[in-house]
Amino acid sequence: MSKDFSTREENYSKWYNDIVTKADLAENSAVRGCMVIKPYGYSIWEKMQAVLDKMFKDTGHENAYFPLFIPKSFFSKEASHVEGFAKECAVVTHYRLKTAPDGKIVVDEDAKLEEELIVRPTSETIIWDTYRSWIQSYRDLPLLINQWANVVRWEMRTRLFLRTAEFLWQEGHTAHATRQEAVEEAEKMLNVYADFAENFLALPVLKGVKSENERFAGAIETYCIEALMQDGKALQAGTSHFLGQNFAKAFDVKFTGKDGKQEYVWATSWGVSTRLMGALIMAHSDDNGLVLPPKLAPNQVVIVPIYKSDEELAKLNDKASEIKKSLEALGIRVKYDNRDTHKPGWKFAEYEFKGVPLRIAIGPRDLENGTVELARRDTKEKATYQQTDLAHKIEHLLGQIQSNLYQKALSFREQNTTNVDTWEEFVNQIEGKGGFVYAHWDGTKETEETIKEKTKATIRCIPLDNKKEEGKCILTGKPSTQRVVFARAY
Amino acid sequence: MSKDFSTREENYSKWYNDIVTKADLAENSAVRGCMVIKPYGYSIWEKMQAVLDKMFKDTGHENAYFPLFIPKSFFSKEASHVEGFAKECAVVTHYRLKTAPDGKIVVDEDAKLEEELIVRPTSETIIWDTYRSWIQSYRDLPLLINQWANVVRWEMRTRLFLRTAEFLWQEGHTAHATRQEAVEEAEKMLNVYADFAENFLALPVLKGVKSENERFAGAIETYCIEALMQDGKALQAGTSHFLGQNFAKAFDVKFTGKDGKQEYVWATSWGVSTRLMGALIMAHSDDNGLVLPPKLAPNQVVIVPIYKSDEELAKLNDKASEIKKSLEALGIRVKYDNRDTHKPGWKFAEYEFKGVPLRIAIGPRDLENGTVELARRDTKEKATYQQTDLAHKIEHLLGQIQSNLYQKALSFREQNTTNVDTWEEFVNQIEGKGGFVYAHWDGTKETEETIKEKTKATIRCIPLDNKKEEGKCILTGKPSTQRVVFARAY
Repeated sequence: MSKDFSTREENYSKWYNDIVTKADLAENSAVRGCMVIKPYGYSIWEKMQAVLDKMFKDTGHENAYFPLFIPKSFFSKEASHVEGFAKECAVVTHYRLKTAPDGKIVVDEDAKLEEELIVRPTSETIIWDTYRSWIQSYRDLPLLINQWANVVRWEMRTRLFLRTAEFLWQEGHTAHATRQEAVEEAEKMLNVYADFAENFLALPVLKGVKSENERFAGAIETYCIEALMQDGKALQAGTSHFLGQNFAKAFDVKFTGKDGKQEYVWATSWGVSTRLMGALIMAHSDDNGLVLPPKLAPNQVVIVPIYKSDEELAKLNDKASEIKKSLEALGIRVKYDNRDTHKPGWKFAEYEFKGVPLRIAIGPRDLENGTVELARRDTKEKATYQQTDLAHKIEHLLGQIQSNLYQKALSFREQNTTNVDTWEEFVNQIEGKGGFVYAHWDGTKETEETIKEKTKATIRCIPLDNKKEEGKCILTGKPSTQRVVFARAY
Repeated sequence: MSKDFSTREENYSKWYNDIVTKADLAENSAVRGCMVIKPYGYSIWEKMQAVLDKMFKDTGHENAYFPLFIPKSFFSKEASHVEGFAKECAVVTHYRLKTAPDGKIVVDEDAKLEEELIVRPTSETIIWDTYRSWIQSYRDLPLLINQWANVVRWEMRTRLFLRTAEFLWQEGHTAHATRQEAVEEAEKMLNVYADFAENFLALPVLKGVKSENERFAGAIETYCIEALMQDGKALQAGTSHFLGQNFAKAFDVKFTGKDGKQEYVWATSWGVSTRLMGALIMAHSDDNGLVLPPKLAPNQVVIVPIYKSDEELAKLNDKASEIKKSLEALGIRVKYDNRDTHKPGWKFAEYEFKGVPLRIAIGPRDLENGTVELARRDTKEKATYQQTDLAHKIEHLLGQIQSNLYQKALSFREQNTTNVDTWEEFVNQIEGKGGFVYAHWDGTKETEETIKEKTKATIRCIPLDNKKEEGKCILTGKPSTQRVVFARAY
């Protein structure tokens, strides 16, 4: 493990990239803007998927799979949707290559598609086109479906996990008989996301709704969870949309109610993506590398033997296997690294950089004394523990690490949340330490846009539990009834 | 549940399509050749994924994710690969749409890609381009990686699950220091596939290697498992390729051995896809619909109450919950359907058509007698069982159903496997009942192609455990040392 990486203070952006690439999470590919998710990174994503998938199923959702390609004309059917999505996207125009006379491989112009296909940037259109034949009666509702898929948005400036042309995500698409049920679904899934963020990612989030400017293209209301990163910038970690009847109208999806009357169906959609990997990395990691919350760590514990002779190693192998077994019996994920190709010091640095929550070192003296040395990744504390009942002690410690990471992130957020009342204070805060800035806003699109132009700060959300409070807009001085949350964002 | 579906004898092809669409497994989408996998179908695929994923991990493989898009030039690098794959594929040429003066959405000609991107038909090229930076030394080997992904091959004639433009699959891509290790890996994964087919799909398979004609484009050797469907046609259910150093040479992937010398890396790749859904359906289903092996059935047991009054239903609800709990305690997947919107007879037909392995019917008289009625989907047998220790009886029955399906498919294959020695016998068999036909072949590509042209039969495989036997080629009369397996195939 090379020590050649940046600290947060030196260069936050390089620090992030160094962790992603040097901890073997992901790397750029030969295709502009598309990443390769490496096995270590992918195993964290798999853990996230498993937890979320169970949460979705526990709330009554089923998985399905819809086509990668969407006919171009589908995008035109929902007016605001096309503006938001169909512009920067991958367009398939041909379905065959051929060998040219000079031996080169070229596109076969005879194999031009009649209608171009768009690689899905999101699937509302193709799914609602399908729902038309699935929904006839109130008995067919609610339809609670989720899809795990890859999507493509042709981003010009990309960053590993945070903004890539292709990314992995899940997209829920539900259909309901009433407006109220759809709103409740959108809010329920927001709460599922917040629960996941706080209890698994160890990431405190604000729950709120977006202002009109930041709303999903085609939504009536966009709910979101917003997290604060260590550089004082916000990161949108998940969104849930109440779509009203917009897509049902665009794709003519009606149902017959109990009263025999036909009505358009109500919709929601909601998604989280591999972007959460970026949030996870930036929320907890430090200048020594990645820090992983135990619940999502591929290896929660690593055991490293310290030895000089093969005879010593043989004894340590026995003891380590015993410890490994006792931990696995409690469902703890353990790696025992007794490779002779690397020294203990190298291994310590390697697993520290890769964010393994707990390290056990064990040597000949430990065997004599019935002890091990435990090192926590989060606090860097080291201590000697008796081997007696070690598995339960470690289970307890992993729980402590999980909640410590959450508390630390929560304290950070609290320290970086400010109320400001004047434009000058606002600019100083946004251009200084950043963070979440609660300020009054006159409620207009124009004001929001001017603020964004002047400071790059956007309204991250209007918190769901917001207190009403009389005040004056920081930019225009016009009256306002509540503070909204501004920040610069990823 | 409508009874409006074909029998196998009336129209085998329609029978298959009726099961796929009417049992809610999949349907055609608005995009030519692309399917929608519906929740019931997807839940079977998820079960397959979970079992296979565990098998891959148990044999030391890790998951990762590589880009959807492959630069066109990558395909030209491995000469035989481009012929096999780069021809019928989806080509991305532009990255933006725009609104034309007439308000229509059109491709923005200013946003033309410098180099076209191909939607992956398989990922050897992009993966070996990536491996170049991952592999330097023998210490980096073996590299044992799998990817779950969607791929696109622009098929002209498509059939749900069996041949679709977009399909879901897994593709393993491994890198090794020696030829022997790579060959062993390819054979190991073939055995994993055969194990999965026989013990989960309840599908007996022949293990063999492909003739040169049928080999994967870029492989030195293609191993395959071949299954027989009820119409006497063969279905290739999985392939594992020994790729030699072809891709390492094309993408310049070398490693330094223990001896300090540089050598090209040895490769394998292997995959199974949603095509397995087609195999599963065609292997076991009958004229009453889908038949699922218990190990892959989303619901292994369905409980249907028979009642006249709400009071009766309340009592049955209690008993059914009790039975459901006792089954779930043994890990059995159970659905209790007490919906009042449908009659018991409708439910019986519905779950029969959807292939649920066991049905429990329970009514007021059963409550008095401490009994239930059990109906097996595979044999259609019905019997009354005492409720005492019901869960273990059912567990046992599910095991019996699983092995009965396998035995039935095995008997069918045995009855439909023939040895033929003359051209006339061969043609009669292929154009008659079909099945696996063991015949002598002179070993040439030309003969194989002529046989295909004349009869549509291809060499499915040369079985791994083949006996050597002197004989004469059925077409040319030239000498042959072994029989190979011919069949018409999906």
